[in-house]
Amino acid sequence: MKAVDNRLRVHSAEPLVGGPPLPELRQDHITPADLFFIRNHGPIPEVDAASFRLEVDGLVRKQMQFSLTELRASFPRISVTATLQCAGNRRDELMKVAPIPGEVPWNADGISNASWSGVCLRDVLEVAGVAPGAKHAAFIGFDRVTRHGETFGFGGSIPIEKAMSPETLLVDEMNGAPLPPAHGFPLRVVVPGYIGARSVKWVRSIRLQAEPSDNYFQSKVYRLFPPHATAETARPEDGLPLAENSLNSVICDPEANAELPAGAVTVRGYAIAGGGRRVARVDVSADGGRTWTTASLEPGEPWTWQFWEARLTLGRGPAELVARAFDTAANSQPEQLASVWNFKGYMNNALHRVAVTGR
Amino acid sequence: MKAVDNRLRVHSAEPLVGGPPLPELRQDHITPADLFFIRNHGPIPEVDAASFRLEVDGLVRKQMQFSLTELRASFPRISVTATLQCAGNRRDELMKVAPIPGEVPWNADGISNASWSGVCLRDVLEVAGVAPGAKHAAFIGFDRVTRHGETFGFGGSIPIEKAMSPETLLVDEMNGAPLPPAHGFPLRVVVPGYIGARSVKWVRSIRLQAEPSDNYFQSKVYRLFPPHATAETARPEDGLPLAENSLNSVICDPEANAELPAGAVTVRGYAIAGGGRRVARVDVSADGGRTWTTASLEPGEPWTWQFWEARLTLGRGPAELVARAFDTAANSQPEQLASVWNFKGYMNNALHRVAVTGR
Repeated sequence: MKAVDNRLRVHSAEPLVGGPPLPELRQDHITPADLFFIRNHGPIPEVDAASFRLEVDGLVRKQMQFSLTELRASFPRISVTATLQCAGNRRDELMKVAPIPGEVPWNADGISNASWSGVCLRDVLEVAGVAPGAKHAAFIGFDRVTRHGETFGFGGSIPIEKAMSPETLLVDEMNGAPLPPAHGFPLRVVVPGYIGARSVKWVRSIRLQAEPSDNYFQSKVYRLFPPHATAETARPEDGLPLAENSLNSVICDPEANAELPAGAVTVRGYAIAGGGRRVARVDVSADGGRTWTTASLEPGEPWTWQFWEARLTLGRGPAELVARAFDTAANSQPEQLASVWNFKGYMNNALHRVAVTGR
Repeated sequence: MKAVDNRLRVHSAEPLVGGPPLPELRQDHITPADLFFIRNHGPIPEVDAASFRLEVDGLVRKQMQFSLTELRASFPRISVTATLQCAGNRRDELMKVAPIPGEVPWNADGISNASWSGVCLRDVLEVAGVAPGAKHAAFIGFDRVTRHGETFGFGGSIPIEKAMSPETLLVDEMNGAPLPPAHGFPLRVVVPGYIGARSVKWVRSIRLQAEPSDNYFQSKVYRLFPPHATAETARPEDGLPLAENSLNSVICDPEANAELPAGAVTVRGYAIAGGGRRVARVDVSADGGRTWTTASLEPGEPWTWQFWEARLTLGRGPAELVARAFDTAANSQPEQLASVWNFKGYMNNALHRVAVTGR
């Protein structure tokens, strides 16, 4: 297996977790595979492509198995450009509000965008036949994750409506090349608009069922608890099972603590609306949110982030850059990190602030 | 025509604009028709039901007219419970940040929920035949509105996908009774999940077209301008044309300035996610947002608001109650009114705060 690209900031070596530097992430609408953020929960499994079989079972009319060759021969080939984002993106800011022990200290690097190719999950499920009562599609990977003394494959589920939606894919190619091992070789799920955890890598089974997955990563974590819940007292059912991404906007360039002269500065970043919505406007401030300038905003594609850019004027000395997005339904973001803080550190979409210094 | 229910707080007599007291609004999941908020832009037109014809034209295969009898005889009868909300709901709070001249000073009373019965707009459009290139459905009412020296029927448009979605109705009954004159007799559009302005009352024509409506109320106003835009300098194209509602939550009971003894208090309100999304959680604070309690939340129905209730403890003296909602995609609301202020005063979804006094 190829070594990790040395530009990736590694947050954890085993399991491998890392993300790209923000200015480089902001350079290309499609993130090069080598720069794409990696969030694994166990060692990368070595899956033999020739003997690989995808199992489809549960509430289907016919339990089935598919080799990679069968998948490629049986179904139309589809490509979707989709941004994946870890539910823990921007957790490091929440960690400064109050400790979040044992979680990955993502900065705003837990997100990337790629062109994914493969087959529609719907096409595969239609061949197996969706039986009455099937409400969720549950995925399990070939990886081996250990939690609380048990070892199991990473898993999660999505509602059957999303599983049957044409953008949800079984993917064997990323940016036109075979899926790299760190990203799920030989086959992964890609669920556009949802938190990255539902795009299960190294997928080995798809089960249709009446209830959501009982896998640890669906039933216990990747849940949004209220700010007043604690790790000691919260019950899983107190947390919202995460699915669609929330509205977010991030300043990628300049980075925090950049030394900038007084005068004009170009601020660049990304914004994402989640769940198939679009970002309608991004405002940027160079004075901590007192005054705002509307950024120019790329339209993006239906399931992708949108890059934005604004030209601002800095005075002498330190300044705080702030970005905020509005979606097409006029939703915006909370101002305060404390409003969204939760003990697992998920879904931080408070306004992104970057302190820069004068030169 | 029946006089206006004397419980309605009339914001304007001509055109008639008014909303219910919040504690009464919060009593019934389905708002009684007499209490339902009214937002008219001109005098209520007297439409003769017998000679009424709905015109369907533009990018259709066959231009058509329908009498009420024909509509009722030709299409299946459908009921949808849907909450309508004025884009200006909660404008009075924004008016305290900076003046918003010439607009209705709604408090949180520009919203109500009803059961609407009629026929699917889609069924009607399918009989006329949607021609290639039809991207928007534009509605015009029988009312006569005067703006900038011109007099015309109130109008607006929705994307063709929403027009063809099964919840979008042509309605002749509200809560099981004929549509009252103030609410669009004999026929109105109801577009669940969208700002109220798109649910055109006294509808007389539906035109399918390639572009959004050029009616004043679509092309010039009901647009979300940035906080830094001004009435003098903003161009219409700088504003986002409003469509889906944003996430909101409101405290209905107790009302502002209520005199409350120290001890337990039950706080009640509504929350709405907009655009077919759901509210997943409402938190309520009795200390201005320092500490929070998760409210019990009614599930509601797919296109309705959700009532919530929380039991809090008040100390002696004044207190600030605050509510905030999270939707199923983990979106929340901005804290500050200044973040969402705009010179038309639309789409205020900053956290709702109610100051109560001790007793």
